[in-house]
Amino acid sequence: MRAAIAGASGYAGGELLRLLLGHPGFEIGALTAASSAGGRLGTHQPHLPQLAERVIEETTADTLAGHDVVFLALPHGHSAAVAAQLGEETIVVDCGADHRLADPAAWQEFYGGEHAGTWPYGLPELPGQREILRKATRIAVPGCYPTSVLLALSPAFAAGLAAPDVVVVAASGTSGAGKSLKPNLLGSEVMGSVSAYGVGGGHRHTPEMEQGLSTVAGQPVRVSFTPTLAPMSRGILATCSAPAAPGVTKESLRTAYEVALKGEPFVRLLPEGTWPATAMTYGANTAALQVTLDERAGRVVAVIAIDNLTKGTAGGAIQSVNLALGLPEELGLPLTGVAP
Amino acid sequence: MRAAIAGASGYAGGELLRLLLGHPGFEIGALTAASSAGGRLGTHQPHLPQLAERVIEETTADTLAGHDVVFLALPHGHSAAVAAQLGEETIVVDCGADHRLADPAAWQEFYGGEHAGTWPYGLPELPGQREILRKATRIAVPGCYPTSVLLALSPAFAAGLAAPDVVVVAASGTSGAGKSLKPNLLGSEVMGSVSAYGVGGGHRHTPEMEQGLSTVAGQPVRVSFTPTLAPMSRGILATCSAPAAPGVTKESLRTAYEVALKGEPFVRLLPEGTWPATAMTYGANTAALQVTLDERAGRVVAVIAIDNLTKGTAGGAIQSVNLALGLPEELGLPLTGVAP
Amino acid sequence: MRAAIAGASGYAGGELLRLLLGHPGFEIGALTAASSAGGRLGTHQPHLPQLAERVIEETTADTLAGHDVVFLALPHGHSAAVAAQLGEETIVVDCGADHRLADPAAWQEFYGGEHAGTWPYGLPELPGQREILRKATRIAVPGCYPTSVLLALSPAFAAGLAAPDVVVVAASGTSGAGKSLKPNLLGSEVMGSVSAYGVGGGHRHTPEMEQGLSTVAGQPVRVSFTPTLAPMSRGILATCSAPAAPGVTKESLRTAYEVALKGEPFVRLLPEGTWPATAMTYGANTAALQVTLDERAGRVVAVIAIDNLTKGTAGGAIQSVNLALGLPEELGLPLTGVAP
Amino acid sequence: MRAAIAGASGYAGGELLRLLLGHPGFEIGALTAASSAGGRLGTHQPHLPQLAERVIEETTADTLAGHDVVFLALPHGHSAAVAAQLGEETIVVDCGADHRLADPAAWQEFYGGEHAGTWPYGLPELPGQREILRKATRIAVPGCYPTSVLLALSPAFAAGLAAPDVVVVAASGTSGAGKSLKPNLLGSEVMGSVSAYGVGGGHRHTPEMEQGLSTVAGQPVRVSFTPTLAPMSRGILATCSAPAAPGVTKESLRTAYEVALKGEPFVRLLPEGTWPATAMTYGANTAALQVTLDERAGRVVAVIAIDNLTKGTAGGAIQSVNLALGLPEELGLPLTGVAP
Repeated sequence: MRAAIAGASGYAGGELLRLLLGHPGFEIGALTAASSAGGRLGTHQPHLPQLAERVIEETTADTLAGHDVVFLALPHGHSAAVAAQLGEETIVVDCGADHRLADPAAWQEFYGGEHAGTWPYGLPELPGQREILRKATRIAVPGCYPTSVLLALSPAFAAGLAAPDVVVVAASGTSGAGKSLKPNLLGSEVMGSVSAYGVGGGHRHTPEMEQGLSTVAGQPVRVSFTPTLAPMSRGILATCSAPAAPGVTKESLRTAYEVALKGEPFVRLLPEGTWPATAMTYGANTAALQVTLDERAGRVVAVIAIDNLTKGTAGGAIQSVNLALGLPEELGLPLTGVAP
Repeated sequence: MRAAIAGASGYAGGELLRLLLGHPGFEIGALTAASSAGGRLGTHQPHLPQLAERVIEETTADTLAGHDVVFLALPHGHSAAVAAQLGEETIVVDCGADHRLADPAAWQEFYGGEHAGTWPYGLPELPGQREILRKATRIAVPGCYPTSVLLALSPAFAAGLAAPDVVVVAASGTSGAGKSLKPNLLGSEVMGSVSAYGVGGGHRHTPEMEQGLSTVAGQPVRVSFTPTLAPMSRGILATCSAPAAPGVTKESLRTAYEVALKGEPFVRLLPEGTWPATAMTYGANTAALQVTLDERAGRVVAVIAIDNLTKGTAGGAIQSVNLALGLPEELGLPLTGVAP
Repeated sequence: MRAAIAGASGYAGGELLRLLLGHPGFEIGALTAASSAGGRLGTHQPHLPQLAERVIEETTADTLAGHDVVFLALPHGHSAAVAAQLGEETIVVDCGADHRLADPAAWQEFYGGEHAGTWPYGLPELPGQREILRKATRIAVPGCYPTSVLLALSPAFAAGLAAPDVVVVAASGTSGAGKSLKPNLLGSEVMGSVSAYGVGGGHRHTPEMEQGLSTVAGQPVRVSFTPTLAPMSRGILATCSAPAAPGVTKESLRTAYEVALKGEPFVRLLPEGTWPATAMTYGANTAALQVTLDERAGRVVAVIAIDNLTKGTAGGAIQSVNLALGLPEELGLPLTGVAP
Repeated sequence: MRAAIAGASGYAGGELLRLLLGHPGFEIGALTAASSAGGRLGTHQPHLPQLAERVIEETTADTLAGHDVVFLALPHGHSAAVAAQLGEETIVVDCGADHRLADPAAWQEFYGGEHAGTWPYGLPELPGQREILRKATRIAVPGCYPTSVLLALSPAFAAGLAAPDVVVVAASGTSGAGKSLKPNLLGSEVMGSVSAYGVGGGHRHTPEMEQGLSTVAGQPVRVSFTPTLAPMSRGILATCSAPAAPGVTKESLRTAYEVALKGEPFVRLLPEGTWPATAMTYGANTAALQVTLDERAGRVVAVIAIDNLTKGTAGGAIQSVNLALGLPEELGLPLTGVAP
């Protein structure tokens, strides 16, 4: 299979390339970008020596044509126009936000502009989602934060163990913000400091979390979400809690998670007493998850670690593509993290 | 005034010394410790060249005698025995946990062993607390996490704007764990990783938060608290939320905070739209605070940054001692952080 | 004394303000900048709450007029034109490079453009330099790397213990590169990585090191200098070596350094067996220095740690201004670092 | 092939396991350790979920028997006794220092105790070394620093372009010091700080560098080596210089490196003007190298980045074992780094 990557000079693009280089089912075709077009990939992705001499092309329908799979790692609002020019024989994977939300009003409120429509949501671990993805030719890759939150709380909501009043506080590495030249992303500002942003319900991933959890719960779930920026390049640690349903015990909670996660190749419920660290998942397509009942406060508390660029973006994208192509779901995706 | 520091080789002890060296009202007397006794301070605190040649003594009633103020920066459970041997003419400041909790049952549950009794709580910003501290000869310095949470949420609870069902997720720098030789505190483990610990209500600072908030609220407040460890040496960023009381608006919330914080020398309500970063308070006795209403989720969300060693421990201790000694509350305490 | 700061929104400007706020001899006057003019200082320097509401003005002769001291923290090439408009009754301190080099050819080679002339060099620790600075109304603040190298090797060259063939490899925190929006300075790129730059003699601080060491040695000294960028915000650790002169022993070397540094308020020769760490000097106007003889390789090896923004820029500037104003040299300058 | 790993709970052991899990030619047999024996691997290596339930055994001749390859990742001085009990039908790979030095006097001086003898040196890139390794049943894995320095300077010495008077300053991530519980390796001490250690010729890797370079140069080479500790978990950036031989030009130097590195699978000469960063090699078995002539100072300057745990230890070990087993040298070894 030949894969093209639009947005090859960015962080998501680089991670797609890193993983595809280790994937036995793919040959890397066109590499495209906007302002970096014309340069060598090695300038932007010096950790990928095999592709150092490859020239970056403009992102156009022409350069992306003739591939079996096209990965779009573009700023939000840019995917729909490109995708419209690619036929149904091409699997198009949108790593951006354009096709995630089903509700045009939510799109309008959080992103603005016209809604591009909804594509199959690329989180195979959601109930019933694998079947949907097996027939997909268009895939909307979940946001990195929603990936973490949906994996962490779906088992509780699917089993009816939590009330629909969720609080999430998550710490993300700086690569989640992309390669943007903003003062607050400078190393001097970031190192030695944790900061909050998008507080109070304004982060664009909020409606996506609510959409996913509501579907799983079968009732509207609201989420109070606060993202924070931590001094690391990669990783998300999300602490997610909701009021426990009446009668829930630590044991019933753990059993529900064990049942829900049985056979999942990438989501690991940690041994009791062990809590997630993002280092457990660095560079891997895995999630490290733990759940407990805070009896004092009456809340289900689930904590999850993922790599925002791997399971949270590029690895999750390839996992869904594996399904869409009829390949083994785990093919080419790293289970081992890089630590320490 | 002559001050002795017990636990001078640790992180809290080092920060007390750093601040006292810049305080015009203090002369530094005995420096004591346990396993480090007999060595030079410079071996343990090389950032304090003025004291490099000072010899560390054993922590005993004798070495601590004859000082106006004795700061105890000892592991929990060690302060009561030492304090019992110091007369009322000496101001004793416990930077440990021994004298914070009023409820012996909570002490027993979270710390174990016999309760050492309760001392005046060294958080001048709590309503009415300055008056209590002005007459104090014994001061229990708050825990670093409770300092952050009480400063962040007291204005909301004092004004009746929040329901008593609090969720706190906080990120701390590693110095909060002290100079303990534990594998999970090694640089190789900590760098590039955020991890959770003490999840599910088990962290010892939980009852202290509940005690303080309940007093302010005039009703029992429960707190679901999750601490996380971030890859930085210093700093706490705490995200604190609670259901908004009926009728609360963004404006009424901000006004309540402005009123409550008016005249506070160290707690700063940031301009609207600016969110706290721990770098704002690095090495300073300040707190950077922001609050908003998450209208979608119906929650008051307050985010606060402090330096866990300064406002969260040593600076907070000296602030209370300034009051106890009748000195200006701000004397010798840095308002400026060190950034970037 | 009233001080104006041109370049108040940058890192050097912020450090000048941090130190001046703690200096008893200064009142802070005009704060000026280029692109940040018109905004509040708090937007750019949120760690300085006392000045948060101050408005930044344009850098012009008018806004800088009427101050006793003007600190110029501007990009190189911008200081001369501003300085020319300020009278001799004003002490002008150039934190940039414009007035450091005596040799117009070296200026032309490394910076290009016209040479602005040479001002008294603001490194009081150089032999005879204090006397020069006591009469100065114009001061050229040394570069951060040259500060470290000159402090580390001057005692050896002044005593004739080293041959003039120096190799320096230095690691710097990212604030040394300023608040520039360059991709290689993004947190995602910097964290977890050490990188080299300006290798092979091209770094602009090279001729400045050679100028200073040659003056001390009384003969031409050549320097092979390699700077590296380390994942920290502040600090320089410079490893400096040169062939040992015949007959040099570890003891004679140490004695020479002890003699040379006797009475120096800010440069500390560490106890034998202790090696510098930048954390020893974080936020302080100090240098932590160690020297030894590598008998196997026949080289004098001196290692030094400074804070690039404090002793390496703003603190060094104020130290020289203290001399120029007839104030105690140490006034207002921190001896204690912030650690851990 | 079945491989046993002695020292499986440490950092080198963990990296061996990470790479062997991705190697098509190996099955992972016994995992052994000293103090960690009896526990689960998941406690020590939570980034390797596939092996989480594996029990760690004692390191004995019995537990290591019956494997095709035994990797010893033990503290120095512990490998010889274990190796003596393993027959020649087993390939034994010593990741420690015991069998690297040919000169018993150098061993005695730098390590002390009895010299264990010399094994084939596992750096295939050295001239003629591949042939030696193809017949080896015992392999001494080079130290991480010597790996970097020998790769960086061998081309220059092999071509006679440098004089034998080398200066090396290298920055290493903290994993190079292992999982030792020492105060200076705590995260609080390491983050935000670069420090020197082992200055003045005392580091144990010095004679190993001299041994390797002297062999390549055909004459005794002396090395002045200063290691520094940088705030990152992984990576070495080594700046290596030596006086240029008469007549050397930038062009002749680059050509010599291009010729020497032609066909090397893992050592990459960067494009001119690009300088190494450790992030380029994070988790990869690669080296990123650049060389230039400092014409001003008359020195050849080579800068190299490697991952100390991958190419510097475990990856280098597997590369040599691939040769010894007659497998393709690159088999199972990552060319792509994990970045950002």
